[in-house]
Amino acid sequence: MREGIMSLLVTGSIGIDTVESPAGRVENILGGSAVYFAAAASFFGPVRFVGVAGEDMPEDFLAPLEKMGNVDLTGLEVRRGSKTFRWAGRYHADVNQRDTLDTRLGVLGEAGPTIPEKFRDSRYVFLANTHPALQAQLLDQLAAPKLVVADTMDLWIERESAALQAMLGRLDGLVLNDTEARQLTGQANTVVAGAKAAEMVKRFVVVKKGEHGSLLFAGGKVHVLPAYPSMNVVDPTGAGDSFAGAMMGYLASRDRRDPASLLKGMAYGTVVASLELEDFSLNKLQRTSRADIDARFKEYLGMMRVR
Amino acid sequence: MREGIMSLLVTGSIGIDTVESPAGRVENILGGSAVYFAAAASFFGPVRFVGVAGEDMPEDFLAPLEKMGNVDLTGLEVRRGSKTFRWAGRYHADVNQRDTLDTRLGVLGEAGPTIPEKFRDSRYVFLANTHPALQAQLLDQLAAPKLVVADTMDLWIERESAALQAMLGRLDGLVLNDTEARQLTGQANTVVAGAKAAEMVKRFVVVKKGEHGSLLFAGGKVHVLPAYPSMNVVDPTGAGDSFAGAMMGYLASRDRRDPASLLKGMAYGTVVASLELEDFSLNKLQRTSRADIDARFKEYLGMMRVR
Repeated sequence: MREGIMSLLVTGSIGIDTVESPAGRVENILGGSAVYFAAAASFFGPVRFVGVAGEDMPEDFLAPLEKMGNVDLTGLEVRRGSKTFRWAGRYHADVNQRDTLDTRLGVLGEAGPTIPEKFRDSRYVFLANTHPALQAQLLDQLAAPKLVVADTMDLWIERESAALQAMLGRLDGLVLNDTEARQLTGQANTVVAGAKAAEMVKRFVVVKKGEHGSLLFAGGKVHVLPAYPSMNVVDPTGAGDSFAGAMMGYLASRDRRDPASLLKGMAYGTVVASLELEDFSLNKLQRTSRADIDARFKEYLGMMRVR
Repeated sequence: MREGIMSLLVTGSIGIDTVESPAGRVENILGGSAVYFAAAASFFGPVRFVGVAGEDMPEDFLAPLEKMGNVDLTGLEVRRGSKTFRWAGRYHADVNQRDTLDTRLGVLGEAGPTIPEKFRDSRYVFLANTHPALQAQLLDQLAAPKLVVADTMDLWIERESAALQAMLGRLDGLVLNDTEARQLTGQANTVVAGAKAAEMVKRFVVVKKGEHGSLLFAGGKVHVLPAYPSMNVVDPTGAGDSFAGAMMGYLASRDRRDPASLLKGMAYGTVVASLELEDFSLNKLQRTSRADIDARFKEYLGMMRVR
């Protein structure tokens, strides 16, 4: 059996984050889209990690991710003379609102990572948010991916529309938030926007609504899931990446991409994200077992079961 | 068998509405909380209607409600020398946002309605939003209600806190939106707010989140439902009242008030509200059959079924 079968690869950012929330303030903690994604996906199977940090990355900075097991860091590049991506933000009393206080792109403003030879047979691929032209370059390095999913953000929709459109046609799936879906399609209704966006990619669109759940547009149909009702939100940073990580981890582990499996993956994504946001950085996920996830998954389905 | 068993009574407003939405503008159409509630509930069984209009109410104004069948208008009072409640509002391109352009309380600023003798044995009771002291007076007129549910609004939370608190202890259930739940409890987290609010009433709280679904707090547990993903929102006026009407109609028809039945009632509420908002006034509900509701109910459950 080829090793690449059911293999999951993520490319995205490694971040040095400073976060203020009603629960407290933490400085220079481990963050970044690829980090949160990989941590969440690792509960479901092996994850191949590709990302770039700068020389300023503290020693053992990625140790929490390594300790989770299942994450192959062969694709980690620590670039000499460059700076790690840094982000600082403050969440309001209503933690669904935040202000970005500082963003220093560092290596994210430079050339992208190279995908190691041994990762090029990856079948499940997640291209976390970055310039769409860079996402296209990463995709060019893969031999025969089976399910390519990307996320994007308002910045690229505004500024890099042509590159984004070119990229979208190569994707099986796109993950984006409700504001971005409306912006991408020019539709005021989120459901109409999601359906239009789904016409731009090969298979599906997932619209994330944070505390309000998510929508799936696949096979000409709409599916909908509520968020897990969290009473204990410490830091929502990384919740969207954790959602995507658990979703893709589930799909890779089952080698599926049909709508029913996508929805089940989203339900796992909802649950893992709801755990992730209960503490800063990877603190909560490090204390979480697969059994914890399965217990909350069962609880979550029970919360919305109409009999 | 006593006639009052499983009987459902609603008291609330009759409104002459003027609505602007991206879909168009309509003047002096039938609206009001009791009207939307009764129309939605009528699909599930008989509804006893109690409300006051003014002398200025146009002839045959309530004909659309009468034509739906199942609504007993014995409790309708047309008050000489008084004016009907009027409301005018404008919905934005994002129809989840609206501006109130004009509100004329008319009879709603006067003495409340009297509940007819033949309605006083009602078992299921919904007190639509009005001054909490008036809600208490209405409740005093009922012999032995089994399930009393009210909704409230920000105005009473701000201005009539003492009367509202006194009223809450007499309620089995309270329906309110997410902003109101946070305001009532002083909690920034909607889920925590809902749980705190549930401690103020006898049985349950339903938190409505409009296009984002609803939460149920009952029996010490949280349940959650997404909204039906609507692509065709013409006029959201009355969606919340229709939600409550279908929920209460379902509960009365089954003579149930346990958490599982409440959640199923909310699912019917979600579906009937999603139909109601596809046209102005009662236009869509008048064209809707119970079979249409059951078909959308099945579709809705399928949209969120994780297998």
